[in-house]
Amino acid sequence: MTDSKHGLTITEVRLTPILVADPPLLNTQGVHQPYTPRLIIELITEGGATGLGETYGDTKYLDLARPLAAALIGRSVTDLNGLPALAAEVCGDSPAATGADAVDVGGLRGVQTADKLRLSVLSGFEVACLDAWGRATGLPVHALLGGKVRDRVEYSAYLFYRWAEHPGGRGERDDWGAALDPAGVVAQARRFADTYGFTSFKLKGGVFEPAQEVAAVKALAAAFPGQPLRLDPNGAWTVATSLTVADQLRGVLEYLEDPASGTDRMAEVAAATPLPLATNMCVTTFDEIAGAFTRGAVQVVLCDHHYWGGLRNTRELAAVCRTFGVGLSMHSNTHLGISLAAMTQVAATVPHLDHACDSHYPWQTEDVLTERLTFRDGGLDVGDAPGLGVELDHERLATLHRRWLADDGSHRDRDDAAAMRLADPHWTAPTVPRW
Amino acid sequence: MTDSKHGLTITEVRLTPILVADPPLLNTQGVHQPYTPRLIIELITEGGATGLGETYGDTKYLDLARPLAAALIGRSVTDLNGLPALAAEVCGDSPAATGADAVDVGGLRGVQTADKLRLSVLSGFEVACLDAWGRATGLPVHALLGGKVRDRVEYSAYLFYRWAEHPGGRGERDDWGAALDPAGVVAQARRFADTYGFTSFKLKGGVFEPAQEVAAVKALAAAFPGQPLRLDPNGAWTVATSLTVADQLRGVLEYLEDPASGTDRMAEVAAATPLPLATNMCVTTFDEIAGAFTRGAVQVVLCDHHYWGGLRNTRELAAVCRTFGVGLSMHSNTHLGISLAAMTQVAATVPHLDHACDSHYPWQTEDVLTERLTFRDGGLDVGDAPGLGVELDHERLATLHRRWLADDGSHRDRDDAAAMRLADPHWTAPTVPRW
Repeated sequence: MTDSKHGLTITEVRLTPILVADPPLLNTQGVHQPYTPRLIIELITEGGATGLGETYGDTKYLDLARPLAAALIGRSVTDLNGLPALAAEVCGDSPAATGADAVDVGGLRGVQTADKLRLSVLSGFEVACLDAWGRATGLPVHALLGGKVRDRVEYSAYLFYRWAEHPGGRGERDDWGAALDPAGVVAQARRFADTYGFTSFKLKGGVFEPAQEVAAVKALAAAFPGQPLRLDPNGAWTVATSLTVADQLRGVLEYLEDPASGTDRMAEVAAATPLPLATNMCVTTFDEIAGAFTRGAVQVVLCDHHYWGGLRNTRELAAVCRTFGVGLSMHSNTHLGISLAAMTQVAATVPHLDHACDSHYPWQTEDVLTERLTFRDGGLDVGDAPGLGVELDHERLATLHRRWLADDGSHRDRDDAAAMRLADPHWTAPTVPRW
Repeated sequence: MTDSKHGLTITEVRLTPILVADPPLLNTQGVHQPYTPRLIIELITEGGATGLGETYGDTKYLDLARPLAAALIGRSVTDLNGLPALAAEVCGDSPAATGADAVDVGGLRGVQTADKLRLSVLSGFEVACLDAWGRATGLPVHALLGGKVRDRVEYSAYLFYRWAEHPGGRGERDDWGAALDPAGVVAQARRFADTYGFTSFKLKGGVFEPAQEVAAVKALAAAFPGQPLRLDPNGAWTVATSLTVADQLRGVLEYLEDPASGTDRMAEVAAATPLPLATNMCVTTFDEIAGAFTRGAVQVVLCDHHYWGGLRNTRELAAVCRTFGVGLSMHSNTHLGISLAAMTQVAATVPHLDHACDSHYPWQTEDVLTERLTFRDGGLDVGDAPGLGVELDHERLATLHRRWLADDGSHRDRDDAAAMRLADPHWTAPTVPRW
């Protein structure tokens, strides 16, 4: 619907790729690079409202974002059901959209497909449309999604094995220090709890052999008795290893996240343990749901509006999960405050969001907002400011964009294995199962 | 969210029960009464916008609507995710909401539960909220649902076995005459096609023994070769009869609707015939989906925003169906133009609505709108007027309300079996399966 009379027609879309500092966080594929690409979207309406969106900034996402941005001019910000068809139309023939393995984001997102790539790009535009619509009409994004059902969204502390600094001292430094054993993980958790009030803890695993990670979780359980704990090895384990760990951590974990890779293995694990399994790898698209749900392969889906194509699709995913008695929580990759605001707005509208959401945000020392979002008492308040309720700092954006422009190409496409090779020249991203 | 600054706060809700003329349409439970109850909802916002809604008007629906209407005062029309909890809170203890068989609407809606009753009431308020919100902001309801993906919604001709007039000449008369055999059904279909351009035809069955209804469908197939046909006996058949009919009408029917009653029987039928089965009886709530979908009991769900709790829930149902590869179309009970406008708005937003929608509307000679909606070329255009795009005729409303006030109680609660007893004193609503 073109909607010039309400000023909701899109007249301009600005795409700004940036590089943001990222600490040396370890996962089963390698280590985060010193800088990671994100794409910031500004969408301007005829009435003068600006909407902000954020998504992955790797080259192949940018290649899809550009034609989609151009195609949005002249459309209404309310025309959201039409976005998938539009994206398929304008991105369908792009080199990035063809081929099932077009984008490698480190093997952490499950099988790559053109559809997933397109939905990730689309998500940034959908959020920007909702933000602009909200700003134009004075309504918060949650109201455009049917209204919040809670005034606070709980988040979990996202714990990582990590080095004190990047190989060769590259990139920015922070004062977190290394965390490479149970004591280091507990100290990191303590700081998260003290600083932000988090009461749930998730450890990114798949880095060390399972016994060490089990020991770290048990150390967390001793340090934070009775508090929800999670472990996520990103599918690095065999079914047998998964079941051994599940047995060792029964009664300790809230859920075990993607212990094994793929629906077949997850279903095997789930059938043999009472510990709930969560996933953001074997169920990442609507096409993957039926097979996994009918086989009972997962008990909790970790939704991510970037994966699923936006906030409205996230709500549809929530409806599907509720219908099939599957729990819901929220996954996070590296992201900035625009996405955190979007995550919080949609999370506030979903009645059966049963677990604290994940967020990398505390690890990000840089942002493009005039004011950072601040976790208090383990969560974020859900306000009623128009749109997402955040403001863009154009100077910060320009600075981070200049970093992207100046980059020699080594950070424009996230590659955790390449980063690891700077420390270990023989490193290759391991095939799963690794243990 | 209270939203006084945008004038979206609800300040008044008017409930007007009415009786509308209904022709003597036959179904497996009996016959439509001369007048049928509907509830018209007017919701007024602080900013002066009025929103219209319509739902069932039987006493037990009214009993729930009254406390819900009172509880809406002071809330924002955007606060839709909160409606189910509010309805559960204010209606939970009402006599109507307790007991699984609180409302008998003729056995045509599947098992009755307090949840279903509440959702049917809630649907009228949700539509009224969306209408008011749209009127207040100049946006059509479809935009508030994410925008239309089509400019026209196709409807089917809803054919009924019927008498020329009600027993004893009661009620209003129309000029359709009787349709009690294949020739009568074809003549009725011809008039529907000529008048409204419908190209799909649904016959309400379960009235005569199956062989006669098969003959009617075959007569339709001969009269309208290649056009989509459906038959709906409302669960009146055994599994064996269902399979016999399915065999006789393979390649003739687009789908067979609720041949047998309940998920078990439907699953048995579905397993033994390639003919797709549709339902608005065994899957009428989100709770019933998992069992039916995992067993392949139905291939098409006939959604109805009254059953499912509104237009947004209808979209969530559509998402669940799409995710599980189940088709979608739309069911209808007797309704007026407000509901037809609501059906059309939501149908326009659902990408995979694969079949023409059902509507009783052509049978309704009375309405509460200033201007009736008119089917052209078998469908309705989806406009961009604010809200639902329809206007209430207060005089018509008052007239039909006076009829409700004057009624001796015999029409305030729909009872197709009681109506049938006026023709056949020994009639009792048959237990299913009937054949």
